[in-house]
Formats: sequence, structure tokens, C-alpha cells
Amino acid sequence: MTRKEEAYVIGAGMTVFGRHEDRSLESLGVEAVRSALADAGMDYSEIEIAFCGHVLQGTTAGQRVLQGVGLSGIPIINVENACASGSTAFFQAVMAVETGMVDVALALGFERMARGPIPTDPRDSRTAERPKSAPPMMPAMFAEVFKAHSRKYGTRVEQMAMVSVKNHENAALNPKAQYGHRVNREEVITARMVAEPLTLLMCCPTSSGAAAAIVANRSRTQGRAKAPVAVIAAALESERGAGAGDPLYGITEINTRAANKAYEQAGIRPDALNVVELHDCFAIAEIVHYENLGLCERGEGGKFIEAGLSARTGKVAVSTSGGLLAKGHPLGATGVAQVVEVVEQLRGESGPRQVPNAKYGLIHCQGFGGAVGVHILTI
Amino acid sequence: MTRKEEAYVIGAGMTVFGRHEDRSLESLGVEAVRSALADAGMDYSEIEIAFCGHVLQGTTAGQRVLQGVGLSGIPIINVENACASGSTAFFQAVMAVETGMVDVALALGFERMARGPIPTDPRDSRTAERPKSAPPMMPAMFAEVFKAHSRKYGTRVEQMAMVSVKNHENAALNPKAQYGHRVNREEVITARMVAEPLTLLMCCPTSSGAAAAIVANRSRTQGRAKAPVAVIAAALESERGAGAGDPLYGITEINTRAANKAYEQAGIRPDALNVVELHDCFAIAEIVHYENLGLCERGEGGKFIEAGLSARTGKVAVSTSGGLLAKGHPLGATGVAQVVEVVEQLRGESGPRQVPNAKYGLIHCQGFGGAVGVHILTI
Repeated sequence: MTRKEEAYVIGAGMTVFGRHEDRSLESLGVEAVRSALADAGMDYSEIEIAFCGHVLQGTTAGQRVLQGVGLSGIPIINVENACASGSTAFFQAVMAVETGMVDVALALGFERMARGPIPTDPRDSRTAERPKSAPPMMPAMFAEVFKAHSRKYGTRVEQMAMVSVKNHENAALNPKAQYGHRVNREEVITARMVAEPLTLLMCCPTSSGAAAAIVANRSRTQGRAKAPVAVIAAALESERGAGAGDPLYGITEINTRAANKAYEQAGIRPDALNVVELHDCFAIAEIVHYENLGLCERGEGGKFIEAGLSARTGKVAVSTSGGLLAKGHPLGATGVAQVVEVVEQLRGESGPRQVPNAKYGLIHCQGFGGAVGVHILTI
Repeated sequence: MTRKEEAYVIGAGMTVFGRHEDRSLESLGVEAVRSALADAGMDYSEIEIAFCGHVLQGTTAGQRVLQGVGLSGIPIINVENACASGSTAFFQAVMAVETGMVDVALALGFERMARGPIPTDPRDSRTAERPKSAPPMMPAMFAEVFKAHSRKYGTRVEQMAMVSVKNHENAALNPKAQYGHRVNREEVITARMVAEPLTLLMCCPTSSGAAAAIVANRSRTQGRAKAPVAVIAAALESERGAGAGDPLYGITEINTRAANKAYEQAGIRPDALNVVELHDCFAIAEIVHYENLGLCERGEGGKFIEAGLSARTGKVAVSTSGGLLAKGHPLGATGVAQVVEVVEQLRGESGPRQVPNAKYGLIHCQGFGGAVGVHILTI
């Protein structure tokens, strides 16, 4: 496509991620939207279209949430792409602005989840008919990813534990994170086994929460209190090919393709990045995504974490928010919350977890079922 | 927005609507897409983005369906707006083309439903906690609409029956319709009572099926076997205001607003229309929508059907497909199937139910929860 307008994030906000057993979806969603509007210094009446990412919240959930902010009559579109639902909502908001369809668009993501593994869907032939005694499906799938990566590249359980330690360390500095406690390597490795060799602390929790980002064209960035953050790449990809039984195919090909497309759009190379929020739904996923995103060579992901290169003080700070592993993963909210983290890092608003002089940030989100979104922001 | 490109429907296709208890969602969806591709004379590889409307089919349903057509890696976005989900998918495909984001977009709608009333959602505070003995929610709501309309304008049960008779008559000529039998006024009135005074034959059935439309810019209409059908209006609205307890507010204000916006975009008046597919989920809805769409004056909807003005041979042919009442209503498929009907009417392909010399067609879809889509097509 030809990019008619440049798109900027001019407001971002989110709720604390956590259990929120006492709060409604609507109150979480409204809090996130109000927070983003306040951040942008604007009224809801400026929003011309809203894209609402969620997975499990039922019909017209976006309308239910947004009526608590205002009944302005604008198009409200609920979008779903599994764990990339929020990323898809952000992609659509960026497209709506870049194409000149609207001047100001809202990307909203939210989810209210019960404890325990994500329920599999009886309508989905890919997941139906698993025996009840089997480990939860997603951890089992990522256990296979680890085993294949380990066989091929020598990746070790200890390296997965290092990812979890780092992300909990970051989360401990993020007041919006679900978990505020640091963990050590031993605790991660000896935690309850979920799907051999993945322990509970190598798996993201289920969570509730909401996040919102307001995207505007250049003219509508004028007169705002805070600096606009430019969106210089927006890629959304689905699956290509089937991978012929390779357990690494689904976690490499689509992600690498989306990342390469984003770098091409942005005109930068991976080594320009200062901060990255990636889809660390399991510790092994973060390791493989280092490779997919070109932060290191293929097969070097385990060594990358071990050398401290993805720490806040490393070559590129990854999952400064705490990531899905420790900030939490309310499905539809995640992709938009990643935007919130990167926007705050680029503006220098991240307090004790701030990465100094962050100029380029990348956001990566993968939805099981075939959707990967990659966006690159800069200030 | 400024409209950079003109959008055209260059291919449309759908499955038969019906129970389809022996068929998977995937096979229905694939059939619809292949039918639309064949209609356009193109390969799936030409599609650059896909919007998939559905309500109840679970996570990444669009990806599950489209992998049966091809794994081309394009962005696939699942969109949900209750009964306007298909209309929303079509709106997005039109926007993607009109803004210049892509040259060719796919709008796909599908649903596989069980018999009986649509299940209400326990997460939705608007519908939770209804006693089990109460009539199904949607019929009960439209019974209130009838009562209010009747009190205010004298609309009669017999007029609702006439809508059902007309739409079944049209469906009997549509090989894609769920119901192929004609009904008479007496049969409609004496059918099983669902929510006083709405009988079963005044309520749309639950259905399974799929429909697809391919939208392209002008340059990509070149060299196709069939004439392109231009999209000259695309409006998607959500609710504005609350209506202060007026049972007619929710079925009038948002629909009238969306229709007026569409007429303004198209630069035509309602009397230019030859064919209309509107959201006749219940017989009373069709009557009120005559008024909302400006086909007659406010309050004159009952007289409009009684005078035969919405028959195929009337002033404007409404629900020539059989409408939701008799063609069936597989939620997400409906809005796209309405496009299929109007495209075929405008091309003169509707066989025994063809409206002669149809030049302008309007499509209207309302999703409970706050979404109305109105599109106007011309040839």
C-alpha cells in the first residue's frame, strides 16, 4: 500500500494486570480508555473509529465497554486473532490513520479470564479430543518447541529459567504487572511441572486487564502535551505453508516473515532497536523470538539470554514490562499493552525500569491459529 | 475520509443456507470463497487481505476456514459485531480498497448454528439472569417493538404476516434459501406462538451457511468476465444516546442515521432504489426498517407492505432473497449473503425472482449490541 499519512501514538494507558476477580470487564476497559485519553489530553469525542481486540468476552464486547466512555455513534469493530487480537486491533487503527480513512483511531484490548489453562474450543478440530490427562495444550506444544530447539541448537532448561528470572525482575519494577516478586533460577526450575520440562514459572499466567492506544495522523499530534511516537512499521501475517511436521516451523517461519516485513517498512535493522516487547507466552518462545526478530543468529537464542544481552542493561532490552510471563497475559489486552510499554520507554516515562535514550522499539505478538503482528515505533 | 479509490464487488458467492448438520464450518466457508473466486474468475493468490465475520465459531475461525483455500500468508482478521458481523467484514473490505490499502480484499461471513434460540451470553450483563420460563430474548424484544409500533401507528399482526408471506414467496424462488415452501397469511398467524404476538413464522430461523464477496479497485476490475458492481456508500454506525426507555429508539435512531449517511455518500434518494436486502430478523423489523431506510414515511411501514409496495413487482423489491425470515440467518454470513443477492440482482442473474432493470441496491444489517451497516451498490 501507499502510506498516505504518517501514524503516531498520541495516548496510551492500561490497567494493572492481575486477577481482578472483583471487577467487571466494562470497568477494566473503561479505565484503560480513560487513561489513554488523559495521556493524550483529549476527549472521547475526538475518536472516529474503535477497534476492540478480545478473544473470550462474547458478542459486541467492545460496544459494551465503550458505552461507559460515551455513545458517540462511531464505528466500533470487535477483532479477534487469538493471542494477537490486541496487536490486530492496533494494526487496524494504524491502517485507518495511515490510509487517511480517519484522523484519530482507538485500539483497545481487554480480557477477563478465569484461573487455569485457557479453555480449548470444542469447535476447533485442531484442539478437540485431547485426553483429559494430557498436559494443557499450549504448554505441551511449547515443550515440544523446546525439545526440538534443544536437539538442534543445544538450548538448555537453565536458559529458559534465565528468561523467567529476567522478566520477573522487570515486572518487579512495573506497577502494572501481575507479579511483583523476583524469582531466582532455582525457584524457576523447581516450580511445579506443567509440561515437561516447562515449569509453572516458564509459562505465562492467565490474567485480566485492559489497554488502550490512540493513533492519530500528523496534524492531530499538534498541541498535545506529550511527544508523539511514530509508527514506522505495521505488519500482520498469517500462515504460509504447513511445515511438514517440524515443531519449529510454526514458531519461526511466520514470525521471521512478519519481522522482516516490518524492518523493511521501517528502514532499520534489528541492531537499531533499544526496546522490544515480544510474545514470551512461554520462556522458550522468548528465546526463539530473539532469533526470529533478528536480535541474534538462528540457534543463538539460548546464548543471547545467558550473556545478558536482552537485559535492561544489555544489547537490547527485551520484555522490560515483565512480558507475558510476569506482567501477565490477558489475551486481547496483551498486544495493546505492549504498545503502552514501548511508548512509555520511548518517552522516557518508565521510571526504575527505564532504558536510557530509547529511540526505537519493536512490538511482536503471535496468536495461535495463524496471526503474527509486528510494529516498530520511534520517537 | 477522502475516498482514494472506488470499490467494486467483482465476485460473490454463497452456500445454500440451512441446517447443514452433516457439514463442517470449514467446508461451508471454503465453498463460499471458491464460489466467489470462480464468479470473479480469479485465484486466491490475488486476495491481499481477508475480513471474516462470525459470532459463535471460536478463535481464529477465519484462519481455519481459509487454510482450506490456500496458505498465502495475507492478513486475516476475524471481526464480530453480532448480527452485523458480515456487514462489518464487508465494510472493512470496502474501506481497505477505497483507502488504497490493498487492491483486492475478501469479505467472508460464516456461521454454523444449533437449532433453537440463539444462546444468550452469561458474560453479557444486558442478557444475564433472564428467567428460564421467559420467552427467548430476541423475540420478546421484538414483540415489544411491535406493541409500541402498533400503539403509535396502528400496525397490525396481519401486516407482519404479509411480510412473512412475501419473503417466503421470494425464498421459494431462491435455490440458496433455507425454506422453499410458500406460506399463507393464515398459516403465519396460527403458527406456534414464540413471543406474543410473534409466531414462529414471524421469526427468522437459526441457520448454517457461508457467503463471500471480493472487493477490488477500478484497475483490478479490468478483464473480468462479469460486470463490476460499484460500492457507492459504506456506513457503519454504533449507538448514540440511550432512548430513555422508548422500545422504538433502538430500532429507529441508529438505523435511520446509518441510512441517511449512506444516501448522502451515494448521492441518491431512497426512491432511486430498485432492490433492498434489509435486516428482517423478525417481521416487525422489516416494517420498521421500511421507515428507517426512507422507503416510506415514519409510521407507514404497515401500509407499505399491505399495499404490496415492497413486493418484487412493487415500488422497491425488498428481501428478494427471502430475507432472514425465509432465506435463513447464519449470523456472520447474513451481511455478506445480502451483498451476494444484491450483486446478482444488479447483474440480472436472479432468475425467476429477478427485478427487471435493477440499477441501485441497498443492503442493511443490524447487530444487537450496537452496530448497523448500510451499503449501497450500483451497476
